[in-house]
Amino acid sequence: MPRTRVTVWNEHVSERREEAAARVYPLGLHAAVAEGIRDVLRDAVEVRTATLDEPDQGLPEAVLATTEVLVWWGHVAHEQVTDVTVTRVRARVLAGMGLVVLHSGHLSKVFRSLMGTSCNLRWREGEDRELVWTVNPSHPIAQGVPHPLEIGPHEMYGELFDIPQPDELVFVSSFSGGEVFRSGCCFRRGAGRIFYFSPGHQTCPVYRLPGVRRVLANAVIWAHNPAPSPIVPTVSVESPPGWFRRQREPETDG
Amino acid sequence: MPRTRVTVWNEHVSERREEAAARVYPLGLHAAVAEGIRDVLRDAVEVRTATLDEPDQGLPEAVLATTEVLVWWGHVAHEQVTDVTVTRVRARVLAGMGLVVLHSGHLSKVFRSLMGTSCNLRWREGEDRELVWTVNPSHPIAQGVPHPLEIGPHEMYGELFDIPQPDELVFVSSFSGGEVFRSGCCFRRGAGRIFYFSPGHQTCPVYRLPGVRRVLANAVIWAHNPAPSPIVPTVSVESPPGWFRRQREPETDG
Amino acid sequence: MPRTRVTVWNEHVSERREEAAARVYPLGLHAAVAEGIRDVLRDAVEVRTATLDEPDQGLPEAVLATTEVLVWWGHVAHEQVTDVTVTRVRARVLAGMGLVVLHSGHLSKVFRSLMGTSCNLRWREGEDRELVWTVNPSHPIAQGVPHPLEIGPHEMYGELFDIPQPDELVFVSSFSGGEVFRSGCCFRRGAGRIFYFSPGHQTCPVYRLPGVRRVLANAVIWAHNPAPSPIVPTVSVESPPGWFRRQREPETDG
Amino acid sequence: MPRTRVTVWNEHVSERREEAAARVYPLGLHAAVAEGIRDVLRDAVEVRTATLDEPDQGLPEAVLATTEVLVWWGHVAHEQVTDVTVTRVRARVLAGMGLVVLHSGHLSKVFRSLMGTSCNLRWREGEDRELVWTVNPSHPIAQGVPHPLEIGPHEMYGELFDIPQPDELVFVSSFSGGEVFRSGCCFRRGAGRIFYFSPGHQTCPVYRLPGVRRVLANAVIWAHNPAPSPIVPTVSVESPPGWFRRQREPETDG
Repeated sequence: MPRTRVTVWNEHVSERREEAAARVYPLGLHAAVAEGIRDVLRDAVEVRTATLDEPDQGLPEAVLATTEVLVWWGHVAHEQVTDVTVTRVRARVLAGMGLVVLHSGHLSKVFRSLMGTSCNLRWREGEDRELVWTVNPSHPIAQGVPHPLEIGPHEMYGELFDIPQPDELVFVSSFSGGEVFRSGCCFRRGAGRIFYFSPGHQTCPVYRLPGVRRVLANAVIWAHNPAPSPIVPTVSVESPPGWFRRQREPETDG
Repeated sequence: MPRTRVTVWNEHVSERREEAAARVYPLGLHAAVAEGIRDVLRDAVEVRTATLDEPDQGLPEAVLATTEVLVWWGHVAHEQVTDVTVTRVRARVLAGMGLVVLHSGHLSKVFRSLMGTSCNLRWREGEDRELVWTVNPSHPIAQGVPHPLEIGPHEMYGELFDIPQPDELVFVSSFSGGEVFRSGCCFRRGAGRIFYFSPGHQTCPVYRLPGVRRVLANAVIWAHNPAPSPIVPTVSVESPPGWFRRQREPETDG
Repeated sequence: MPRTRVTVWNEHVSERREEAAARVYPLGLHAAVAEGIRDVLRDAVEVRTATLDEPDQGLPEAVLATTEVLVWWGHVAHEQVTDVTVTRVRARVLAGMGLVVLHSGHLSKVFRSLMGTSCNLRWREGEDRELVWTVNPSHPIAQGVPHPLEIGPHEMYGELFDIPQPDELVFVSSFSGGEVFRSGCCFRRGAGRIFYFSPGHQTCPVYRLPGVRRVLANAVIWAHNPAPSPIVPTVSVESPPGWFRRQREPETDG
Repeated sequence: MPRTRVTVWNEHVSERREEAAARVYPLGLHAAVAEGIRDVLRDAVEVRTATLDEPDQGLPEAVLATTEVLVWWGHVAHEQVTDVTVTRVRARVLAGMGLVVLHSGHLSKVFRSLMGTSCNLRWREGEDRELVWTVNPSHPIAQGVPHPLEIGPHEMYGELFDIPQPDELVFVSSFSGGEVFRSGCCFRRGAGRIFYFSPGHQTCPVYRLPGVRRVLANAVIWAHNPAPSPIVPTVSVESPPGWFRRQREPETDG
């Protein structure tokens, strides 16, 4: 079976500027996320990383064209991601590339442009204990995930989270301060599958937790569309009577 | 504008047996729920109550036929509700009567037969503080409801709540013990609209809270289908070619 | 009861350029749409119209601020709508203004920016007969709408329609050429409610059909959010422990 | 990789009574369905068949316990399926067994008990040509399916189909008589995944079409839950404070 090709993208800024982040993720968040996915999925994946300061912001066409699932972590540098990059990534998602958006990536241009809403939320850095509860037990992303998955201390992310109603809501978190958050959300857009997962503050070793690694691995498998449908139209297409029969003729002849 | 005709049904057992419940709801839970709806909606509703020990379990055809929204509270007497009653109520819901199911009504035969799942959950009587958070801010049932709506101390209801994914998820609760719960859920079934709202333990004066009364009133208005669609088929119907044109002819002639 | 304030916006280009459109809608599509809504809802609405060539493209802040539901028709001039206008309209929708998007408005910048997908589809101008079928019989927008609602001859709009899965799918159309289309789709975004309805080609007198007028009127009522929730965050908000209690204190004192 | 264990259940009545059905499916519909799944998935599945006249109606505990996906075809004998069988099958679905319901199985007791609605529809035996269109292009069940998938002549199934709004709508059909139908619908119930697919009248060789076989194979893979979540509660469970931490202790010790 061919391996799922995953690219973990990280702006890689906080871990080089903030001591607290550098201590937790000395090699960058992307390294820990990539390691977690590799540890769970082993031979089923091929994982590389990319960062903002690389050529073409780490995501040239050549990389995107060979990426089946893109994992995205960003926070303080959202505005540095150029519209060219956003357009390129978004087009690939609509054409079938999976997208897993992590934590503060909720405010990334890519995610917001695919959601259509502000994606704002409430937040608090502090000592909250987060519990991630499964509310969709037959969903592939919930498989093997503890109920609840305990995370803490962690940054609080709270409702109202201004997103479209998820196509499938998988996880809901509570925080010791009393807030709740839709922490695991599936969306389908074009031929692409998108999963948002909220845990993962840069100063908390969240991506080292086995339960979180299980979620990331499950999300990668779920988001991977091995045969993206060719039927998503890239422009609105004039379609004469019987077009759908005529388009088949070559197939019949072949 | 004609008034929405509401019937609040209650098994009315705990308040006559448990001192703690009798103290909080001396006239029965149904009286408090009815009062709450009347207080908010005033001339827009006509509210009556019905209980299990009345003839036909309080829900004869004559009552159902003139009920536009049925509110349901039950707990220890679910099994006493006969299949005849369940069949009658369920048929009315599918034909367009609104249904608002409260708290322990999640295990009522009526609700379970409309959901198709077990509707089980986790629970704990104790001193939990419940916070009800809005996650669907444009929904009519969320209008004017505090964010969060604070309830407590209250019984804990926790995930996994074994229901179908709600058509619209409106509220999510957290409990001080750490659990979360999908506490406000909309479902459409046949021509009927169903809302489940979890707060309302028999020993807690939840139905006296202004925020809860606001939710109940909003739910009644939302669930009321003033002109139930005649197109929901009561049997599978053989439909000869052009049936949909022929059925119109009388209308055109008339 | 206060009237719902509706603004019907139309680019108003085809009806001044194409003879076929001018013949059907000599006063502009907006006039026919506005008339249809007024005819059904009468005293319950206050309907005005706006067009692209007016100052601020017909939608200055003053108009939007007093518009509760915006109806949008556009086709050949999507690119002339400025980003300033799009930003202004989109912000109002997320803040609670209803939006009803008609026919070729599926490619308008406003709609696409709220959906996050391409919104492309298949189309054919010709002699197709369209039948609009209700698939959500308890939905307010389906009330009183014939099943099916017959339209024709009409332009064909066919799948795949590249939109997010609607929060509620109300209508599905068939065309005599064999295609199907999700022709009535509800979306909630921020505090706003959005309805897309596909019938309405500029050379077909679709907006004069009683069934279509019923849909438009129902959609206006459904999309109207009389008390938009103040909880949709305009920025992500830092929220110290207990913020939700402290924010209430003024209310308690007042 | 272990094979997915599939059981194709068929009442097997029409093919023994009606000449038209016997001619198309001399070995029974179940044989053709099983063959189609095997042809596409080969070593990835292990497919057996079961019929109503076998002991325990073909579905004793031993069979269900070793079935990961159950495919169901029934039509004239729905009422002969006992409540014991229905209860057993339904419990397995809620516990995680996949269920693929075909054609007239929409009125089976099993499907109706899981949906909660009447599942009625409109129908017409005749010469309709059915076209099955994909409306969810990133869904695994749509992979490799022609757009449209042409079926005909075939029995017409038309809206209103009285089901809950599907969690994911994958296919919509049109018929030459003008009707539409939601022909491919996903539902999650408990730990189980359910797919309904409408093509497959007993007198039409539908299950021999490559496109239909592709759908069935995709549906089997999608419906297979390899590790059903243990968190679906079989009863409502009292959960003392901190239960979720205590339940982990054995795991930590082990």
